[in-house]
Amino acid sequence: MYGRYTQELGVYAKEEAARLRESGQRRSVSRTLDLLEYNKGRCAKCRRSGYPYVLEAPPQDFISVCTVRCQKFLISRVGEDWIFLILLGLLMALVSWVMDFCIAICLQAQKWMYGGLDSNVFLQYLAWVTYPVVLITFSAGFTQILAPQAVGSGIPEMKTILRGVVLKEYLTFKTFVAKVIGLTCALGSGMPLGKEGPFVHIASLCAALLSKFMSLFGGIYENESRNIEMLAAACAVGVGCCFAAPIGGVLFSIEVTSTFFAVRNYWRGFFAATFSAFIFRVLAVWNRDEETITALFKTSFRLDFPFDLQELPAFAVIGIANGFGGALFVYLNRLIVQFMRKQKAINRFLMKKRLLYPALVTLLISTLTFPPGFGQFMAGKLTQKESLVTLLDNRTWAKQGIAEEFDYIGHSEAWKHPQVNVFVTLVLFIVMKFWMSALATTIPVPCGAFMPVFVIGAAFGRLVGESMAAWFPDGIHTDGTIYPIVPGGYAVVGAAALSGAVTHTVSTAVIVFELTGQISHILPVMIAVILANAVAQSLQPSLYDSIIRIKKLPYLPELGWGHHEKYNIRVEDIMVRDVRYITLNCSYRDLHNVLLTGHLKTLALVESTESMILLGSIERAQLQALLSLQLGRHRRLEYIRERALEEKKRLSVVSNVSSENISQRASQEVRFQISTEDSSLSPSRPVPQKPLKPALKRPSVVERATEIPTGPHDHSGIALKNLFCASPDTEALEEDVDVEDDMTIREITEWEEKQLDEQVNFNNCKIDPAPFQLVERTSLHKTHTIFSLLGLDHAFVTSIGRLIGVVSLKELRKAIEGSVTVKGAKVRPPLASFRDSGTSSSENEATELHKLWDRHKSMPLPREPTPSESDEKSL
Amino acid sequence: MYGRYTQELGVYAKEEAARLRESGQRRSVSRTLDLLEYNKGRCAKCRRSGYPYVLEAPPQDFISVCTVRCQKFLISRVGEDWIFLILLGLLMALVSWVMDFCIAICLQAQKWMYGGLDSNVFLQYLAWVTYPVVLITFSAGFTQILAPQAVGSGIPEMKTILRGVVLKEYLTFKTFVAKVIGLTCALGSGMPLGKEGPFVHIASLCAALLSKFMSLFGGIYENESRNIEMLAAACAVGVGCCFAAPIGGVLFSIEVTSTFFAVRNYWRGFFAATFSAFIFRVLAVWNRDEETITALFKTSFRLDFPFDLQELPAFAVIGIANGFGGALFVYLNRLIVQFMRKQKAINRFLMKKRLLYPALVTLLISTLTFPPGFGQFMAGKLTQKESLVTLLDNRTWAKQGIAEEFDYIGHSEAWKHPQVNVFVTLVLFIVMKFWMSALATTIPVPCGAFMPVFVIGAAFGRLVGESMAAWFPDGIHTDGTIYPIVPGGYAVVGAAALSGAVTHTVSTAVIVFELTGQISHILPVMIAVILANAVAQSLQPSLYDSIIRIKKLPYLPELGWGHHEKYNIRVEDIMVRDVRYITLNCSYRDLHNVLLTGHLKTLALVESTESMILLGSIERAQLQALLSLQLGRHRRLEYIRERALEEKKRLSVVSNVSSENISQRASQEVRFQISTEDSSLSPSRPVPQKPLKPALKRPSVVERATEIPTGPHDHSGIALKNLFCASPDTEALEEDVDVEDDMTIREITEWEEKQLDEQVNFNNCKIDPAPFQLVERTSLHKTHTIFSLLGLDHAFVTSIGRLIGVVSLKELRKAIEGSVTVKGAKVRPPLASFRDSGTSSSENEATELHKLWDRHKSMPLPREPTPSESDEKSL
Repeated sequence: MYGRYTQELGVYAKEEAARLRESGQRRSVSRTLDLLEYNKGRCAKCRRSGYPYVLEAPPQDFISVCTVRCQKFLISRVGEDWIFLILLGLLMALVSWVMDFCIAICLQAQKWMYGGLDSNVFLQYLAWVTYPVVLITFSAGFTQILAPQAVGSGIPEMKTILRGVVLKEYLTFKTFVAKVIGLTCALGSGMPLGKEGPFVHIASLCAALLSKFMSLFGGIYENESRNIEMLAAACAVGVGCCFAAPIGGVLFSIEVTSTFFAVRNYWRGFFAATFSAFIFRVLAVWNRDEETITALFKTSFRLDFPFDLQELPAFAVIGIANGFGGALFVYLNRLIVQFMRKQKAINRFLMKKRLLYPALVTLLISTLTFPPGFGQFMAGKLTQKESLVTLLDNRTWAKQGIAEEFDYIGHSEAWKHPQVNVFVTLVLFIVMKFWMSALATTIPVPCGAFMPVFVIGAAFGRLVGESMAAWFPDGIHTDGTIYPIVPGGYAVVGAAALSGAVTHTVSTAVIVFELTGQISHILPVMIAVILANAVAQSLQPSLYDSIIRIKKLPYLPELGWGHHEKYNIRVEDIMVRDVRYITLNCSYRDLHNVLLTGHLKTLALVESTESMILLGSIERAQLQALLSLQLGRHRRLEYIRERALEEKKRLSVVSNVSSENISQRASQEVRFQISTEDSSLSPSRPVPQKPLKPALKRPSVVERATEIPTGPHDHSGIALKNLFCASPDTEALEEDVDVEDDMTIREITEWEEKQLDEQVNFNNCKIDPAPFQLVERTSLHKTHTIFSLLGLDHAFVTSIGRLIGVVSLKELRKAIEGSVTVKGAKVRPPLASFRDSGTSSSENEATELHKLWDRHKSMPLPREPTPSESDEKSL
Repeated sequence: MYGRYTQELGVYAKEEAARLRESGQRRSVSRTLDLLEYNKGRCAKCRRSGYPYVLEAPPQDFISVCTVRCQKFLISRVGEDWIFLILLGLLMALVSWVMDFCIAICLQAQKWMYGGLDSNVFLQYLAWVTYPVVLITFSAGFTQILAPQAVGSGIPEMKTILRGVVLKEYLTFKTFVAKVIGLTCALGSGMPLGKEGPFVHIASLCAALLSKFMSLFGGIYENESRNIEMLAAACAVGVGCCFAAPIGGVLFSIEVTSTFFAVRNYWRGFFAATFSAFIFRVLAVWNRDEETITALFKTSFRLDFPFDLQELPAFAVIGIANGFGGALFVYLNRLIVQFMRKQKAINRFLMKKRLLYPALVTLLISTLTFPPGFGQFMAGKLTQKESLVTLLDNRTWAKQGIAEEFDYIGHSEAWKHPQVNVFVTLVLFIVMKFWMSALATTIPVPCGAFMPVFVIGAAFGRLVGESMAAWFPDGIHTDGTIYPIVPGGYAVVGAAALSGAVTHTVSTAVIVFELTGQISHILPVMIAVILANAVAQSLQPSLYDSIIRIKKLPYLPELGWGHHEKYNIRVEDIMVRDVRYITLNCSYRDLHNVLLTGHLKTLALVESTESMILLGSIERAQLQALLSLQLGRHRRLEYIRERALEEKKRLSVVSNVSSENISQRASQEVRFQISTEDSSLSPSRPVPQKPLKPALKRPSVVERATEIPTGPHDHSGIALKNLFCASPDTEALEEDVDVEDDMTIREITEWEEKQLDEQVNFNNCKIDPAPFQLVERTSLHKTHTIFSLLGLDHAFVTSIGRLIGVVSLKELRKAIEGSVTVKGAKVRPPLASFRDSGTSSSENEATELHKLWDRHKSMPLPREPTPSESDEKSL
């Protein structure tokens, strides 16, 4: 069962995003440093390391110097994209080949067991059933224990990740291991599961791990946008080396994972996918499986007359029927997941015995395919690969016409039943496999749905083709030569159409050509795929989007086919007008109130309530940290210390100079706050217990003191300048005055009330200085484009600098789903999930934090720096 | 010769862009109106028109009612994307087929003439040479006269247009006619010219015209972003129906024209291209050219063993060599253009006799290919199509090994020469065709370079293949069966590699598969194409980018392959810090000064010089209009009238009420100006001579007068509110008081000086309320992405609302070309162009305007509303 996108993940994603942004900002502060390092690391490498060595080194060290230099050179080249891509391709080809090898062995073992026990049907049944049950259960258990993120296809997650969302644990080594082993076992069981989706995930995992590994050598691998580009290429590699279909792989991965595609990234995908597919096939040649590099499911249809023009309506029928079929598959799949979630009784039981569901499903499916049983009517003994090969065969099975003398050889004999027509076998195969695949893909193991769907489509195409061959035994063509109908061609068309309908892609056509090694049926395939897409897209979301909705992953839905409304809805129609904001000169009390009432992750910073000029946006966590800092124990201690100091001064009558300083400082307090404590602490981190250095010694404070307001206009100007000039000097403070916290609660409350009335000092607050802005008149179409292009979470709506509203992903999603009604896709909040117990601990944690926050709410003022997540939980 | 992108075009583009933007804003004002109309037009159509009809109409009108309803329904469906795409596909398929037919007839006519005159070699030569010269000269002359924009490939222009730049006259009916007829004649001449690039342009023209035509039925066709999407689909159709290669067409068009591709637009391209290719091939079947739908250049290589693993190095060699060849081709092509431009003497002569250059080039090329002459050594008598068919042949030509008994039949015999080896013929063919193609594509006729390059690549591949076949007569494979080498496969690889290298695309691989109908060589083709791309991209820009540079089209260069620097350059390194801005409360004098000194098209509007908070951006033209309005004759007349009125009042002692009104009005003047004149005039239009209505009667003025500043913070707030509340009420004014302009020049100057000191009233000025903003730390990589994604021209750099710099396309281009040094591509400003005389008139115009402006500059104040272009000319 699909794991839901639980809050745990959401919170993690937010944290991670915050962390990244923070580190980004930290990086930017030390930018010049970085640049220097970069130069040192790349360009000046030889000069810096090589020459001095040569000059100083004795002759016998010359070789080692050369070695060092070569090494440095190699390391500097490691940063090149193509080296990374070659490594990625090589790695994935090896992984793919080894996995294929293991899967083949697993499947052979089952056949061998089944064949060896042919004396006793019951034993045979036991062997036939136990083997997949054990494998699937192991796979489910293994994945569950090691990395539950490895469950399922992985394409929906990759789509979300490529949109810029950080998903927890989705690109770790643990997940890689779980996915590879889990997938091998799952596919080795012979269930109708696919390997394409997981391969996309595995390739992305490979890329992420490789990137991490390579960053040991050079710093370029730490760049985020580069990593996203590499992940996109990795998706192409995944499909490419799974089917040995580089072009189709690139296109499929683009269609499935991207909304906007950077053409400059195109070559990366092609390069890596081609290399990977090449190595993958070369391994097969070296292993003596093949004589030379050929297609995976090579067909041999005739080239001179692949199909007649009058057969095109039949192809179109396949396309339309498969369109409906694809939509039905997606619907069925979602229905099963939702049904299992809704049934509380079943759910509770299954939650306890988490491996029961996979075992039961496997038992059911393998029982039905048991060859001496019902399996004989649906070619049950064929593996997925074998059935595909037989379906794409260029001979005609139907017993009429010229195909009569053909007797079923090899695997094809599985389709032949002494009592039953081949048409019945095909229909049974299609119907049974259809629901079996929809059911099997809900098992919580790493698995995809592409291959099963592909096979079902091929079977449907074959059915139509055989019918056509039976109807027109001499072919349709009337001029002279007899060109019999090729049912295998229909199978190709059907496979492409159904898989295209389920995934909402056109590039399955290309994958089919590359898989079969023949492009002669290009027009029928294209027509069928486009028709299937048209039908399926108007009925249901794609399988991946459906899973995204089920899992509640944060993703923006697509704009549908040709809905004009999207050009006429404008931002002003969907935006939230009641924006939470803070002003530049607000007090801590305002901040406190805003934080208590609002729920948005980021808050707008405006110049003043009257002008509403948008200056930037600040994260809640930042504000929370500011507030905590202002009211924190640290500051209170300082207050006590100060009080003690003053006391001391009053007692011992100190010199004029220091008292002057203090008065100067006091005058600053109104405008600038006391910047010592603030600058020594980076907000959102727990308050470090560092000793304090008196503000008097800090030159920056004195400098700032000279900037005294000079005119009526300077009001905002100076305040802003303070924001800009905030230099992040975080010197370690030296002196320490030990004081005791001897204030009573009443005193504390009084002190806090006083603190709250002070003006907020944004000096060390991380402000996003240019949040994305839209205009009221921006159309929904354009807004969608911008949101998906830039991976935005929210955007402020401004009008000549004035903040008038805000649009977040939520509003946009609502607006799109309002205009583009996707029928039957209303995913109600699932009541339970199989992984609920797994996530309960962190949810408890969340509740804990929530309570903490509620406590803060009931008490007038938060006192301690609360963890930054707490507010995000209080959604 | 390529026409340069002259200033004329630039100015036009700017004007057009301004017009579009203006109309967009006008549209947005009447948005609700639009929406109403939309609802009327679509949803409520039946109710509005059908029902009342039925109720009121007598029975005999029932049929007509039905007809009307059907018609309405049909019209409402016309807006659907797929109808448009089907029409486009159909149209293009017909155009393509008819053109192919005409070209074939032209070529046959030449052959027939040449064949008929075989008694006399001289007459034969005359016929062979005159025919193409006449056709090319006609084509050049016709295009020159009708629409010079039709010259050349069209892909560079489409790339620019799809980026959002409006190019003059590139999508008009005239251009369509010129391109279709010019291309037919040019290709009919038998010169080594291609039809692929022009087809992209023709398809876009079709889409634009069809869109215009369809907008007669529904309003959806006026949407700009929709039109861009349709143009992108049209590009795919162009390639698709030219080669009957839908998939390759879509991919090629994406690679060649887009920087960022919207995946949601993907299906449009596939749908239209597939339909178009289908119709294109069906027409061939109906015309009895083909028995069924097949590939254009169908090959029949063996399927079971297409190539051996050990042949791969040879394929890689083809790829690398073709990479160098492709770069050389682009370089040669540019060199020829630049040489012709630089040679002033030649240039001046050719400019006078504009058709001489095409005639001379054609004469040279056709002389060299004359079959009884030099042409016999280079298969000169074959047309492009014939040579391609022979090159892709699956038989071996070389006289060694098993191919010995094969005798040259059909067109293949052209490659055979009694004295000369087939290798020599091939080498001569490659060398001669290479420079001929590079030269021929500089002729000012509609033509592309794809096909010639494709053929040269195929010839090179064939050469390598034949050499391999001669070297290994029994094939390389050692295990048992003999698989001889297939030189045709090498030709396929070579064709894809060279065309890929010249155009910098990977999708030529797909085009090759679709053209030949075989995908068996997928891995060699992919490897060769990727290697060729790697080599070519590191040496030269693509042919289309090269033409963009030659023509100086406004386009942003691509970021090169894996240059890490782009991640480390930031906006603050490249931005212009000295930004021209105007403040919200500036006087007309400030405006005047800013306009006189600056040169940017748009100016930033900031709150005040101290705060520098960015509020929006205003176009120069708008400001100019404001200034003209303030100092215009119209306003002065009003001043005179007012003066006269006051005079009259003082004389006749009117009632208290009206004098009160006048004083109220006078008090408003400081803050709000007198809004009557301003609102009655839309800036940037000539001043209409409408009668004036006294301001006293206007309620809006009174309403605004109540908004009196209430606090110290309200300063900017109220001023801003004025901006927002500016209601575009442009009522016709009624009363007229005839006055005479009796002011002396001295008086006028005084009056103007006074006017200049007034504060600017931005009420009716069109302000872009949310200009695009970047942060200092934005990396060059991201900036490039955003600029190309959103088609920006400039972006302001802000820091917490404060304007600190501006980045325009120019800075960005400089930064990219600084870091991504494209060697050999330094295109110096061409000194002359063949079309200089054509554009001289408009350049004179520009100079005229410039002088006008200079005059204004010398005189202290501009008096009349100058045309809005003048400032744009003064760059």
